[in-house]
Amino acid sequence: MLLLKLTQVESSLEDRVVKKEHWDQLINREGVGFFDLPNRVSLWKAADKRAAEIKESFRKLVVLGIGGSSLGGRTLLAALAPASKDVEFIENVDPCSWQRRVEALGDLSQVHFVVVSKSGSTMETLSVTCAIKEVLISKSLFKNHCFTVVSDAGSNPLTEWARQNDIRELHIPSDIGGRFSVFTAVGLLPAAFAGINLEKLRAGGSWALQNQEFQLQLASALYLSFSELKKSITVLWSYSDDLLTFGLWFQQLWAESLAKTVDRKNLKAPWVSTPLPLVGTNDQHSVLQQVAEGTKDKFALFLEVASFTSMGPKISEPTFRGLEFMKGRKLGELLQAEALATRQALSGYGVPTAVLQIEELSPECLGALIMSTQLAVGLIGEIMEINAYDQPGVELGKKLAKKLLAESER
Amino acid sequence: MLLLKLTQVESSLEDRVVKKEHWDQLINREGVGFFDLPNRVSLWKAADKRAAEIKESFRKLVVLGIGGSSLGGRTLLAALAPASKDVEFIENVDPCSWQRRVEALGDLSQVHFVVVSKSGSTMETLSVTCAIKEVLISKSLFKNHCFTVVSDAGSNPLTEWARQNDIRELHIPSDIGGRFSVFTAVGLLPAAFAGINLEKLRAGGSWALQNQEFQLQLASALYLSFSELKKSITVLWSYSDDLLTFGLWFQQLWAESLAKTVDRKNLKAPWVSTPLPLVGTNDQHSVLQQVAEGTKDKFALFLEVASFTSMGPKISEPTFRGLEFMKGRKLGELLQAEALATRQALSGYGVPTAVLQIEELSPECLGALIMSTQLAVGLIGEIMEINAYDQPGVELGKKLAKKLLAESER
Repeated sequence: MLLLKLTQVESSLEDRVVKKEHWDQLINREGVGFFDLPNRVSLWKAADKRAAEIKESFRKLVVLGIGGSSLGGRTLLAALAPASKDVEFIENVDPCSWQRRVEALGDLSQVHFVVVSKSGSTMETLSVTCAIKEVLISKSLFKNHCFTVVSDAGSNPLTEWARQNDIRELHIPSDIGGRFSVFTAVGLLPAAFAGINLEKLRAGGSWALQNQEFQLQLASALYLSFSELKKSITVLWSYSDDLLTFGLWFQQLWAESLAKTVDRKNLKAPWVSTPLPLVGTNDQHSVLQQVAEGTKDKFALFLEVASFTSMGPKISEPTFRGLEFMKGRKLGELLQAEALATRQALSGYGVPTAVLQIEELSPECLGALIMSTQLAVGLIGEIMEINAYDQPGVELGKKLAKKLLAESER
Repeated sequence: MLLLKLTQVESSLEDRVVKKEHWDQLINREGVGFFDLPNRVSLWKAADKRAAEIKESFRKLVVLGIGGSSLGGRTLLAALAPASKDVEFIENVDPCSWQRRVEALGDLSQVHFVVVSKSGSTMETLSVTCAIKEVLISKSLFKNHCFTVVSDAGSNPLTEWARQNDIRELHIPSDIGGRFSVFTAVGLLPAAFAGINLEKLRAGGSWALQNQEFQLQLASALYLSFSELKKSITVLWSYSDDLLTFGLWFQQLWAESLAKTVDRKNLKAPWVSTPLPLVGTNDQHSVLQQVAEGTKDKFALFLEVASFTSMGPKISEPTFRGLEFMKGRKLGELLQAEALATRQALSGYGVPTAVLQIEELSPECLGALIMSTQLAVGLIGEIMEINAYDQPGVELGKKLAKKLLAESER
């Protein structure tokens, strides 16, 4: 399903510093349950059922959510149903893009809105929901069955609204944080609506759980790249356009989970690298120069799709001088050759790299990939002895924004 | 048009270390002409004229190009014509996305292809062009007037093909490198086809050239953030969905131009930071935790659009408990308040920031923004005494990829 190859010159990445004891710590940690999600079958069935119900009355599903409330669904859609026009995501409070996106939805009577917020109080999502609700009211289209709420089961501004207005709720289990919620209704409801096979996705997640040795190896290599090799930037270089969003999802998962001021003992937390998602071959034409010739502060994990080698159109007639080497080749072969050549070139520059290979862009492989990276980040949190499940650094800005708006003149 | 505010606690960023002498060096450097493009009126008129000609026979324009050959056009389209469906970009040799994108083009007899490569030998672009040519041939739709070639005026694989097949060419001047080519046919032809006013864009570019003091200030602040404050990551945090692509364009411009092994004297080149493009408010929900609480290795330049404050729907009825502060507020006000609050929060964490404010998302402002950032990067190249116009670090991978494909069995 997945394969990790350590290709770099630095043999230290092969050490297995993340061990069974960290795994045990992780799965016994109170209030942390993301790794158990593949076993909670009823949750997957509920998402499938709700998607089918919505489909009976609506042609399009629009997710209103931001960060962990949208990136999981966006990742699944981009990788597994990239041609789908049935699901859209409205995240930001950008006034230009909001207007354009709402207009582009067309006939709003055909649109079902899924409002997603774990805390139920995310001010962007609540504001966007208000604005859309007012558009629906102005067109006499506001009805409670146009909405589904996905949130914590407890009482919060979003669930209170749902309960007062008889709006259907799906719940994010209390032991699942926002950025670890892709295998709850957050990711699964839009995925099911777009026709993605949840059972196969779940099987991939289970594979990851059953391959503990692989997870310890992946976590060790990623951990050592910054703790031992002191690389301050972790490049996730995906050789697939459809994995670009996965890169953004991984960026959030890594950045919010691992960058902390203090550890679990309230002492200064260990240093961690910053994630930088890139796409190949595109970013060979933009950022490769810096990775190769800039400061040697980067470790690059190449994410490659094995099946691509035999895919794409075959070039019968290379047409251009100097392109003879492409005669009889498929486009996918060129992509793979460039990935390999880029890694070799980086090795020549002394930049350590590794490859995470997935068999194909299938629900099973995506399920395995997503669960493996969640486990890697969770395991790194254990070896760093930090709380990988809070985000104190984002709270201050939220409070300040409310204060600014409350105090300023209207 | 543009405004730069230094908001961080570090007063050292206010030093004007980039001076008139660096400006003079830049504009007198042989073979470097990007700053002169706003004065080359005939080039802008040629792009407008060619766009009009293509429009007479085709409904859609597809750019085949990668890196500097696509990012400039993509930046203009995303910021100034984001709703346009008339222009598409096919960049990568990803076999999945290639297939899907070509199928989505619909009636190929209505599509004009613009093949862009400064060197005329970019293997991804030539391969994609071959593949599309073979699709057109299979449908008996291949005709020379379906293509325009944008390249260097000299003889290269792309222009040779154009000349042999009587395909129209537009030229990138010899003193303009790929990543500095947005104000040539590379960016201007797709922009004109989408209806963007080139004359206003050009006026914005001219504004930037005429405001030398502003450019020295911008270049100084950006340069000092890594040379003096030793920040290894330069965050460009755009508070506009439509400036996301500008961030990717800036990332390329910075990374390829400034990260060099050796300087102009062939001595070890100075250290430079790595660019990280983010979007607000989205990335407050993903990367802010790391910027705030992670290692203090970041400088953040906030890119804000002043006109947004009065834009977007007004929230009449905040609906949700805790959202009362939004009553009577526009969505754009929330975006701006969040940008300001995030900067204040980062200051509290000791992260230095600055704001680059543009008046509005207009052709004039985009022209000024693009030229200002090009000038800043060029000026930083001068003070670093490096060649900001080559990219030796990307050549090795290209050679290796060709070798791999040539040597492997078919």
